[in-house]
Amino acid sequence: MALKLYGAPMSTCTSRVLTCLHEKDLDFELVLVDLFAGEHKQPPFLAKNPFGQIPALEDDDLTVFESRAITSYVAEKFKETGYDLTRHQNIKEAALVKVWTEVESQQFHPAIAPIIFQFFVAPLQGNSPDQTIIDANLEKLGKVLDIYEAKLTSTKYLAGDFYSLADLHHLPYAYYLMKTPAASVVNERPHVKAWWEDISTRPAFKKVAEGMNFGEK
Amino acid sequence: MALKLYGAPMSTCTSRVLTCLHEKDLDFELVLVDLFAGEHKQPPFLAKNPFGQIPALEDDDLTVFESRAITSYVAEKFKETGYDLTRHQNIKEAALVKVWTEVESQQFHPAIAPIIFQFFVAPLQGNSPDQTIIDANLEKLGKVLDIYEAKLTSTKYLAGDFYSLADLHHLPYAYYLMKTPAASVVNERPHVKAWWEDISTRPAFKKVAEGMNFGEK
Repeated sequence: MALKLYGAPMSTCTSRVLTCLHEKDLDFELVLVDLFAGEHKQPPFLAKNPFGQIPALEDDDLTVFESRAITSYVAEKFKETGYDLTRHQNIKEAALVKVWTEVESQQFHPAIAPIIFQFFVAPLQGNSPDQTIIDANLEKLGKVLDIYEAKLTSTKYLAGDFYSLADLHHLPYAYYLMKTPAASVVNERPHVKAWWEDISTRPAFKKVAEGMNFGEK
Repeated sequence: MALKLYGAPMSTCTSRVLTCLHEKDLDFELVLVDLFAGEHKQPPFLAKNPFGQIPALEDDDLTVFESRAITSYVAEKFKETGYDLTRHQNIKEAALVKVWTEVESQQFHPAIAPIIFQFFVAPLQGNSPDQTIIDANLEKLGKVLDIYEAKLTSTKYLAGDFYSLADLHHLPYAYYLMKTPAASVVNERPHVKAWWEDISTRPAFKKVAEGMNFGEK
């Protein structure tokens, strides 16, 4: 049975998994979940993920949720297929992929998520973006990216001289950030900017980015 | 060469890794980092973790940081030693360990961390705990634990009927929470309470908990 991904192309977490599935050259079916109708908070979807958040992946009788758990599962189960996202043949490189995957989760994500929320989600809820929240989190994000800038002077990608899941996980939030005035936090750091331009132009992500639209023109 | 863990026993993230090392029956050296002297923000430690946060693990010439990356590395490298924390022989169970490990990271942690900060860290900085922050995050944490309560009626542990890394990762923050009036958020939910009593009395964690002290009597 083919893999079934329940989600929405505009969603950052769905995009993270879609990019992984494309890097792994896998066949899958995308089953749309209508966020505006609140479908993710209704019993059929809650049976897949009790937290009511997209995406969820069905692989035969197994259901996996949390985008970073899905990509890790897919990268491991299909390690011999498509691009090697986890460096599974080298335990040291694999360890560094884990480190920088956790850096995305614990350092980058908590700083960028509130910025994206203010620019893109608050307006959908009828609110103006709160500049105080944006500024406070841009300062946090800048400090994180200072460390990325230093790291990317010595290696081409975060975990080493190879593209990995650690880089991939950054794509969806950074993609939306780059559509805002806050893009300067990336553009002012030459190695971070070069890294962004490299990872965002991989064919797997370019395909996914076509569907990433919050209604903007 | 033995494993070297740089950290401090009172630190939640150090405790997470210590518990994992004990579950795996591994020999290691704990190298104390003096947080009060700001040692984690000085060049020797920053060379191990540029984010200046404990712990960091040295395994020969490899340095791994971010507590959840360290536990995942240790659990995988030493999968045949001590207790099996990742169910590495069963891909479906291993996937569910990944899911609930991410739930800890993305749902439980963001709610409990500000509560522990207010109760334990703010006073060290000369501030009173901010009850508004505590209450707002207790409400979030309660919603997360409602889902845990439902899950734990059908399986003994989060990922299934087996203790795993997913449960282990909750221990340090929950341990400090249980010393505060906010412990009611656990005690009011019978399956969560039974789960907590089970996982917190495993010998590996009891040994670690002896060192978890913020200066309280």
